[in-house]
Amino acid sequence: MAAAAGEEESVERLFESCREVPKWTEQITARALVVSLMLGFFLSFIVMKLNLTTGIIPSLNVSAGLLGFFLVKMWTKALEQVGVLNRPFTRQENTVIQTCVVSCSGVAFSGGFGSYILGMSKQVAHGLEDAKSDLNIKEPSLGWMIAFLFLVSFIGLFSILPLRKIMIIGYRLTYPSGTATAHLINSFHTPQGALLAKQQISLLFKSFSASFLWSFFQWFYTAGEGCGFAAFPTFGLTAYKNRFYFDFSATYVGVGMICPYLINISLLLGSIISWGILWPYINSKKGEWYDAALPHDSLHGLTGYKVFISIAMILGDGLFQFLAVLFHTTYDMYTKRRQRDPVTPFSTSGSNEGSSHSSSSDPTLNFDDRRRTKVFIKDQIPSATAAVGYILLAIISLVAVPHIFPQLKAYHIIVAYAVAPLLAFCNSYGCGLTDWSLASSYGKLAIFIFGAWVGASGGGVVAGLAACGVMMGIVSTASDLMQDFKTGYLTLTSPRSMFVSQIIGTAMGCVIGPVVFWIFYKAYPLGDQNSEYPAPYAKVYRGIALLGVEGFYSLPRHCLSFCLGFFLLAFAISAVREIAKYKNWWIFNYVPSAMGMAVPFYLGSYFTIDMCVGSLILYVWEWVDQRSAAVFAPAVASGLICGDGIWSLPSAMLALGKVRPPICMKFLSGANNARVDAFLSG
Amino acid sequence: MAAAAGEEESVERLFESCREVPKWTEQITARALVVSLMLGFFLSFIVMKLNLTTGIIPSLNVSAGLLGFFLVKMWTKALEQVGVLNRPFTRQENTVIQTCVVSCSGVAFSGGFGSYILGMSKQVAHGLEDAKSDLNIKEPSLGWMIAFLFLVSFIGLFSILPLRKIMIIGYRLTYPSGTATAHLINSFHTPQGALLAKQQISLLFKSFSASFLWSFFQWFYTAGEGCGFAAFPTFGLTAYKNRFYFDFSATYVGVGMICPYLINISLLLGSIISWGILWPYINSKKGEWYDAALPHDSLHGLTGYKVFISIAMILGDGLFQFLAVLFHTTYDMYTKRRQRDPVTPFSTSGSNEGSSHSSSSDPTLNFDDRRRTKVFIKDQIPSATAAVGYILLAIISLVAVPHIFPQLKAYHIIVAYAVAPLLAFCNSYGCGLTDWSLASSYGKLAIFIFGAWVGASGGGVVAGLAACGVMMGIVSTASDLMQDFKTGYLTLTSPRSMFVSQIIGTAMGCVIGPVVFWIFYKAYPLGDQNSEYPAPYAKVYRGIALLGVEGFYSLPRHCLSFCLGFFLLAFAISAVREIAKYKNWWIFNYVPSAMGMAVPFYLGSYFTIDMCVGSLILYVWEWVDQRSAAVFAPAVASGLICGDGIWSLPSAMLALGKVRPPICMKFLSGANNARVDAFLSG
Repeated sequence: MAAAAGEEESVERLFESCREVPKWTEQITARALVVSLMLGFFLSFIVMKLNLTTGIIPSLNVSAGLLGFFLVKMWTKALEQVGVLNRPFTRQENTVIQTCVVSCSGVAFSGGFGSYILGMSKQVAHGLEDAKSDLNIKEPSLGWMIAFLFLVSFIGLFSILPLRKIMIIGYRLTYPSGTATAHLINSFHTPQGALLAKQQISLLFKSFSASFLWSFFQWFYTAGEGCGFAAFPTFGLTAYKNRFYFDFSATYVGVGMICPYLINISLLLGSIISWGILWPYINSKKGEWYDAALPHDSLHGLTGYKVFISIAMILGDGLFQFLAVLFHTTYDMYTKRRQRDPVTPFSTSGSNEGSSHSSSSDPTLNFDDRRRTKVFIKDQIPSATAAVGYILLAIISLVAVPHIFPQLKAYHIIVAYAVAPLLAFCNSYGCGLTDWSLASSYGKLAIFIFGAWVGASGGGVVAGLAACGVMMGIVSTASDLMQDFKTGYLTLTSPRSMFVSQIIGTAMGCVIGPVVFWIFYKAYPLGDQNSEYPAPYAKVYRGIALLGVEGFYSLPRHCLSFCLGFFLLAFAISAVREIAKYKNWWIFNYVPSAMGMAVPFYLGSYFTIDMCVGSLILYVWEWVDQRSAAVFAPAVASGLICGDGIWSLPSAMLALGKVRPPICMKFLSGANNARVDAFLSG
Repeated sequence: MAAAAGEEESVERLFESCREVPKWTEQITARALVVSLMLGFFLSFIVMKLNLTTGIIPSLNVSAGLLGFFLVKMWTKALEQVGVLNRPFTRQENTVIQTCVVSCSGVAFSGGFGSYILGMSKQVAHGLEDAKSDLNIKEPSLGWMIAFLFLVSFIGLFSILPLRKIMIIGYRLTYPSGTATAHLINSFHTPQGALLAKQQISLLFKSFSASFLWSFFQWFYTAGEGCGFAAFPTFGLTAYKNRFYFDFSATYVGVGMICPYLINISLLLGSIISWGILWPYINSKKGEWYDAALPHDSLHGLTGYKVFISIAMILGDGLFQFLAVLFHTTYDMYTKRRQRDPVTPFSTSGSNEGSSHSSSSDPTLNFDDRRRTKVFIKDQIPSATAAVGYILLAIISLVAVPHIFPQLKAYHIIVAYAVAPLLAFCNSYGCGLTDWSLASSYGKLAIFIFGAWVGASGGGVVAGLAACGVMMGIVSTASDLMQDFKTGYLTLTSPRSMFVSQIIGTAMGCVIGPVVFWIFYKAYPLGDQNSEYPAPYAKVYRGIALLGVEGFYSLPRHCLSFCLGFFLLAFAISAVREIAKYKNWWIFNYVPSAMGMAVPFYLGSYFTIDMCVGSLILYVWEWVDQRSAAVFAPAVASGLICGDGIWSLPSAMLALGKVRPPICMKFLSGANNARVDAFLSG
């Protein structure tokens, strides 16, 4: 759907007629790396400050793409002015910058400076009651942070790398943010001349501006918590309390327009099952199944059910997909070896990349998709590279991580690295379907499991937090990589240059992140509740670790049974889907995605409402004018996502500059309103 | 602009091909009168209850048209079912019902049951401090109320009647509500077949539904005062305090789309001059020019400036227009007598109806306008009728009103009736331009002037309130009549049947209004602050009268000078406009309307923002597609006005049934929000 366009309105034909795709080595230029370094540092700084203040980090994909474009554009313009011979700025180079910057600033998030690393510190440990022994505390220091990040941040890249073709070409996953960024980058670089492309670009920039202005407008009304359009109780206050509301987010409306209908409906279904039925039911057992006096975000209570059931369901679906891929690949290799068929370009890649899903010569694909697929599979990255890289890193980690964290033993690392590829796959797959990376959920799972395994006496708190670092490092970079591969696919950027750029960006991040953190750490009392930098998530993460060390039996009643049930359910749903697909049953188009259903289990349904609104808009548009919807909807959706996305930059700057919005748009019940009126006037 | 349509998209051609326009006597049917009586009673009841509770009365034009349509439709359907021969239901009949119902329920408002009549009562008098003597109190009683209403409610009709052609055909005033109602009625009765008409109707009903649903949605967030979208500080809280905000009213956006750009710009200009410059300046003189301790709605303070300056400006423009009409007519008659020209159909009307403005044979008019003009001037109402009616009523009033209110002498009545036509003209003219009837402002002016004239010792409070009744009765019915004439013009309804229907409706209202009031009066302690029916305006009106009896010198300092200045300014602006028009100067299109500028002086600028948004929408639409805007914009605008208008009915019912909206969408400053959060959580 993202790139649905007939032959006559091909973007790639336009590009093809004007410019050749540069070789992959030419896509990574010195200026790109310099610009990336600058932007990476800049955005890391912003992410770090947000980490330590509110803990809420917006997606910076779009900002990275846009700022990269303008910086290099200025650079080339400046060089042209002084008459120096200059190489043209291509969209591939732009994509490389974007990827590099996102990888770099991504580490500032997945490095957990505001969460797990700070959660190990003495400052945070002494703010909580239990486990203050030396074994359960590890003070941050520049050396081990950089070393640790280097160990865990690359493993995700290698683990998911061989699956890129299955994700991008085989499953044709949407990766809405990556798609939107690609549309934006393509728009910047589209050669002049074609009417349709002009219209698309004009629509993209219109919806971009509208979305940006809308976010800007919304900002004025968010003076406090629960203020503004993002807290609009569209369906009443009761529904709002159960997170059923339309939050007026242009991003998720855009994402909804890019995601297939079935995904949006799956999300809605998941919301209804979880927030509409399951949680209210479990809540009604409060005091019976779990202690009623617990704080509402305790894993011992309702939140425990939410986190674990949602992860169980994702794992169920993910495991099935993983096994399916494994089976397809094995079967494929087996038949190939038997028949010695002339190999298709798709299967030349060898090893575990399935060819049963799609092929670049598929006649049902349009020109754009054929061309993109061709470029995407031209520059190979041998799977051996991935395997060797993974094994090498794993071996180093096996020695080095227990050296950094004596609380973790080598066998812990072996287990972690054995399941990591599965989790990385699950997260990338889910992100491709729904645009949500649930890295922090996997991280929490790891804290709990490893914390319980090691136990308080063995330093389980630090062990859990460190395991969280391993897990987040892996799953977060894996989904980022795949998101970027999608952008690369849509901009004809070579997977090789993307991968190299990702490696460089991650390496930058592994140094920049700790350094920036170190500056803050030395200057302020991070994690102090009353300071400027309370780092709220540091406490939350340590809190989870404290629960974890109490063991699995500390989970609320029936939680594990629920998890098992939903795990099996997800597995079964996926199996039915796969069989229906294979057998060409009509129900195939109506079997929901278990992964999609699981996402709102933890997050709530506000964004599913947004996405369904996006679906509705697309549906009406297609109903009114099928062709116009096919050609223009992706552009409009991308504009919506990018406009809101770029606003996160000035918004973060405002927050850091302590510029507060002037007004709070508040929603009060009639009774509360009367009380407030009396209070304010009296 | 309201009916801008090329030859090929003529509404009237469609109607012409199918149905003849019935004779005017056939337009008024028995069933129409029965339905009108029922609806008149129903709506009077609603208006009365609102009068006595909040004092805020929505416009019911649309409801009257729509309910009339459905009732007669049901009637004819029912008769068809039982096989009785039936005459078809025409749009003219529909218009007649609408007019009759609006006139009837209009009396429930202009009769001032919640304002001036109740303001005379002992209950309200004893709630205030001064003037509790018997001479300054008059208890309501069914007899005098009906008599009084009969005396004052018809005079407005006669006074303005001869000017109908100048207003509707000469000036082509827009009367947005009347236009919208006409579009709705036309849509109900449009013969099948024509594609364009179908598209128009479909758009009208779409925007109608959207507007209705939008109002419905808004309702949920208005649990208290200052809640909901109507209190949205779009441009910040400071601007909101000065009434600069977009209040999301579909009605005024629609009105803005129907009103000419120049009017909307005049309104905005007036807002900026008054609320942006003048009032803040005067406010800065608080304590110097007027007592700083006064309540904010006292005529001694800032509100005094607002009311009197706004009226002065309206009178300045109105007087000029009035004199211009007088001059044109005299000149016309003089040249006609001299030249004995073959008379145009327009000037056969004789007497004081100017022919210099327009003509039905004007070739620049499109088919619709030519046909409508022809029908509009076919059925004459001799000006002699108007003159005789007016004089007869005036003579009766001269005797009867002082009989009812001994505080008013015959010479007061003579003065009142001498200036009444001018005020009636001003109000109709202003309403035609901006859709606002400022009847209550004229009423307040009358309270003040006559109260001051008679003085407290002569019973000036009751005299002022009674004079208010006279004035409101005249100006309110005058503008209603003209609004209805516009509807009649656009639906090819004969002015004669409109006039007769208005007379009948008013007569109904003069009986129904007092009777309904009497029911309430006998059942509840009306005007008691703590009762169910506080009738807030009764106190306000009596308060104005109490000020009035203190005389002109009680006005705040410089107020009269300001009034004189703005009166002259308005006169001058209108004169420049008229000269520019006559001389064909290019500045003609850029001279603002003084009347338009004056309206927001008192009301604030929130609705001017709405109307400018309407203008903006129209402007963009015309810029994108000139033809589509010309054909469809009036339909969309009418839908917006009507949808919001019809919602006022269920909304009033909900208010009367004491169903409160569940949520308050409140706007707090950052500081207040912090206080409220602390209050609510602690």
